Amino acid sequence: MTEAEALERLRKFATDPAARGLADDAALFEGLVITHDSIAEGVHFLSEDPAGSVGWKLVAVNLSDLAGKGATPAAAVLSLTIGSDSIWDEAFLTGVEAACASYGLPLIGGDTIALPDGAPRVFGLTAIGRAGPRTPSRGGGKPGDQLWLVGSIGDSAAGLALLLGDRKAAGLLVDSYRRPVPQLIAGRMLAPHANAMMDVSDGLLLDAQRLAEASGCTATIDLDGLPLSKAFVAERGNGLAARLFAGTGGDDYALLAALPADLDPLSLSLPSGTSIRCIGSLGADGGILRLVSKGKPVALPETLGHEHHGNSASTVAGRT
Amino acid sequence: MTEAEALERLRKFATDPAARGLADDAALFEGLVITHDSIAEGVHFLSEDPAGSVGWKLVAVNLSDLAGKGATPAAAVLSLTIGSDSIWDEAFLTGVEAACASYGLPLIGGDTIALPDGAPRVFGLTAIGRAGPRTPSRGGGKPGDQLWLVGSIGDSAAGLALLLGDRKAAGLLVDSYRRPVPQLIAGRMLAPHANAMMDVSDGLLLDAQRLAEASGCTATIDLDGLPLSKAFVAERGNGLAARLFAGTGGDDYALLAALPADLDPLSLSLPSGTSIRCIGSLGADGGILRLVSKGKPVALPETLGHEHHGNSASTVAGRT
Repeated sequence: MTEAEALERLRKFATDPAARGLADDAALFEGLVITHDSIAEGVHFLSEDPAGSVGWKLVAVNLSDLAGKGATPAAAVLSLTIGSDSIWDEAFLTGVEAACASYGLPLIGGDTIALPDGAPRVFGLTAIGRAGPRTPSRGGGKPGDQLWLVGSIGDSAAGLALLLGDRKAAGLLVDSYRRPVPQLIAGRMLAPHANAMMDVSDGLLLDAQRLAEASGCTATIDLDGLPLSKAFVAERGNGLAARLFAGTGGDDYALLAALPADLDPLSLSLPSGTSIRCIGSLGADGGILRLVSKGKPVALPETLGHEHHGNSASTVAGRT
Repeated sequence: MTEAEALERLRKFATDPAARGLADDAALFEGLVITHDSIAEGVHFLSEDPAGSVGWKLVAVNLSDLAGKGATPAAAVLSLTIGSDSIWDEAFLTGVEAACASYGLPLIGGDTIALPDGAPRVFGLTAIGRAGPRTPSRGGGKPGDQLWLVGSIGDSAAGLALLLGDRKAAGLLVDSYRRPVPQLIAGRMLAPHANAMMDVSDGLLLDAQRLAEASGCTATIDLDGLPLSKAFVAERGNGLAARLFAGTGGDDYALLAALPADLDPLSLSLPSGTSIRCIGSLGADGGILRLVSKGKPVALPETLGHEHHGNSASTVAGRT
């Protein structure tokens, strides 16, 4: 079963308004934004990844979903698997603790299970946030909105590529893969103004397509506008192929917001050092996603990002 | 790492009052009772179990935690793994749907991941309930309280034993293992009166010991008072060995409540057909757990129930 098929089946009974049609990354239940992301060894993290970074990442990817809805962290419930390697387990929990402490997320409960010997580790977290004055969905974008991206993209995918070539690789790109940073403050400041917003975790192009589709608009992305880090450019360059790699790599935990054209987010006093860049716009031109570079159309790549298929999980890549 | 070690580590930072010291089955967050239970193939369910029953069980074991706190189901978030067997996945979701519909639990969100080929299936659910006027913990029992058990015990363990002998076994006991029934209404009616309450999932004797320890009391259990079903007695008899098997088997999803001695729960108009039985009492005699039968002390069995160890998950049994 593919993720799309699972969602279709779930929508038949997840009809409560809090579910928002399962069209969003999070539920909105009585003023609380609720999300759950699981990560599995060999799918979302590498067996060789330091245990502490795995714990950090579990918390961070969930906080990124809260950031995408402009919510403030309030509580979390951990689904923990324990194994025979106590040192690993201890380091994992230290990573969970560090991320919870860094972002003010109180851990309030959970469950501990042991898996059969040799099974890949699987961890889950339910994160609960307090909704702000508005909780933007994916689906509220309007023709004429500008698409803004908070954070940079491609670093994590480049880091993963380095690790797949050499499991001992290190550096900024590898750190981006292992220790993503949720854009909580920017999310909270943008949410009241955003017609649509979501975190970018499965690949910018795929997530932009989802936002556009949910909004009934066409997203046009200017590949030349994608924010690439110095470390990324040093590793991959900044040509069209590199930009398509960055736009489809996934695991970025950036934010994508559709803002009215008359709003300049630079006027919002985002935290200093926040990278925010206009990367395109929404229109009503027909189609869902269009790419341009140097003013000319660019054909969509075959794969826009990471979709979750029940029978294709064996390639390692980050996707939540 | 054992579950006890994991809890000890988590308590170092799960210091928010909502966590209740991680000494309970559920958190209490702003009027909401929040719990998470995961189930794994080969640990909490058998590979041969019908997929629909696995989905049912995932929901039911979480609702049982809400029942133990007297909460009313309000929302759930599903952690779903999908595989290449779409028929299995579809049947699993149908089981989830049936349990949600049966107990009025709205599914409002979740996450879908694919696991590496050959990995055991793992599912999780975060269940959110509305707290009643009182949310009893494990730790409020007082000397002189009577211990009452809602539901019967041993059926599920007897069903599992049948299945381990013959994967095609069927009947009431197997049904109890596969499709537990959360005692939601009884839990809601008892909670305002209970000094301590919890659901019995890891084995009555182990869970009674936990309640007694948290309450700083001695629990005395009269093995002759254990409620055994006709089907259980037909399969296992009702002698001391059978009673110890029932008391340690686990996966019962019964409720254990410490009620003041002057309260007769039979006066509470529990739903017709509810089995409730006084099985012992709390005292201040020293020690944590004592067993009696025919008025005489019975030595504690070596194992009181299922504890979760990181290195002993390969025996299949239900435990959440």
